[in-house]
Amino acid sequence: MKILLTLSYLGTNFHGWQVQPGCRTVQATLQEACEALFGCAVDITGCSRTDAGVHANRFCATASPKEGSFTNRIPAERIPPALNVKLPRDLSVIDAYEVGDDFHARYDVISKEYEYLIRDGLPRSPFFEDRAWQIPRPLDEVLMNEACAPFVGRHDFGGFMASGSDIADTVRTIRSFRVFRCGELVHIRVSADGFLYNMVRILTGTLVAVSEGKISVGDLPGIIASRDRTRAGNTAPAHGLYLNNVIYPDF
Amino acid sequence: MKILLTLSYLGTNFHGWQVQPGCRTVQATLQEACEALFGCAVDITGCSRTDAGVHANRFCATASPKEGSFTNRIPAERIPPALNVKLPRDLSVIDAYEVGDDFHARYDVISKEYEYLIRDGLPRSPFFEDRAWQIPRPLDEVLMNEACAPFVGRHDFGGFMASGSDIADTVRTIRSFRVFRCGELVHIRVSADGFLYNMVRILTGTLVAVSEGKISVGDLPGIIASRDRTRAGNTAPAHGLYLNNVIYPDF
Repeated sequence: MKILLTLSYLGTNFHGWQVQPGCRTVQATLQEACEALFGCAVDITGCSRTDAGVHANRFCATASPKEGSFTNRIPAERIPPALNVKLPRDLSVIDAYEVGDDFHARYDVISKEYEYLIRDGLPRSPFFEDRAWQIPRPLDEVLMNEACAPFVGRHDFGGFMASGSDIADTVRTIRSFRVFRCGELVHIRVSADGFLYNMVRILTGTLVAVSEGKISVGDLPGIIASRDRTRAGNTAPAHGLYLNNVIYPDF
Repeated sequence: MKILLTLSYLGTNFHGWQVQPGCRTVQATLQEACEALFGCAVDITGCSRTDAGVHANRFCATASPKEGSFTNRIPAERIPPALNVKLPRDLSVIDAYEVGDDFHARYDVISKEYEYLIRDGLPRSPFFEDRAWQIPRPLDEVLMNEACAPFVGRHDFGGFMASGSDIADTVRTIRSFRVFRCGELVHIRVSADGFLYNMVRILTGTLVAVSEGKISVGDLPGIIASRDRTRAGNTAPAHGLYLNNVIYPDF
């Protein structure tokens, strides 16, 4: 049996998604709750590996109780409330569906959406510490939105990947990419068939560089084509980043 | 010299506003930062005494350095950034104005606005823990908004005060009171010339009781007139409450 779970978590006090010895991670915390619920060992596979401090509005993972040993078979729709009472306050399960054994939480993803939140202007707000990147000077969100256009479509994003990554294929398709202001925050929302390591944070840093006049919108096609990490903007901090949604063919 | 400060704070890790020995309070934290900035003893007076866990989008307080002893006289507009580097992440100063020595942060208030946030429906969200009251069943925000009308105006709110309070005059004027849904949250926003102890939290509990069918809108005028605490709703928890704004005659 394999259960597809949708999770929401505040990343501040997790050392990211993936199990690491001696660290509090989302995967290990979820696994512990699932094992307590099912009464057996449970394999957990996530849709991606978010870094320490990154949040998720919707993150997908499968839980596979070891067949033969688990006794506590409960209907999928009763799994979220049953898990939520076992989970800490910064992690909750939104929904659960039974999927086929050939379903893979990571490889079957056809689209992901990330959102990056920036709070611009002073003074800082106690309500957005750890939840949005605080930038002292006001951003030009209209110009930043214009700067999204050159990125949309199928491109080699090799220059928008953390240096040291060993991914061979750096071509990705960005389906939508826009910037808008809502309340006190500037939202950067991007969806693609996949993302390279730190790609959203580097895209964000690049848009901020455009707002600050350090990069012009007209230079962006050349910067993308160059595949040169040093020509893109800085990597924005982890704590403004949210995995917003994960799309599978049948969900 | 007296400086009127506007503060914002996340109340979760404070034992409320007022100085209490051995407790981390907003007043004590602000006083310590002010004394470090001005280099002398500073008297702090707040616009109200928020309880432990209650938040403030805008809270007003005066800081009065002891005349004669303080040497670090700086222009009011430079005080917020200078204080913010000394304050912890859950407390910030938004603005500062010099006021006359006869100004009183508490007695001169002519209007205050509170907001109460409720997140209704399951599952709980990691992003609103400690920041909104989580209620499992969906609320009827339209009915709750209708239930606000009988409260607006000048009434004796003696039944909407924590029992044991020793306030003699329990007449207050509610200027506006409304309920609306925005995103995942139900917002309850109320402004008045003043509030009794726990009044907003009891009003909130009463509106929730209306939504749940335990109190009818038609019964509210009689409940108000009765001044009977036991006929109003329960006291909603502190962590959904925000002091939104404080109005003085000249600010």
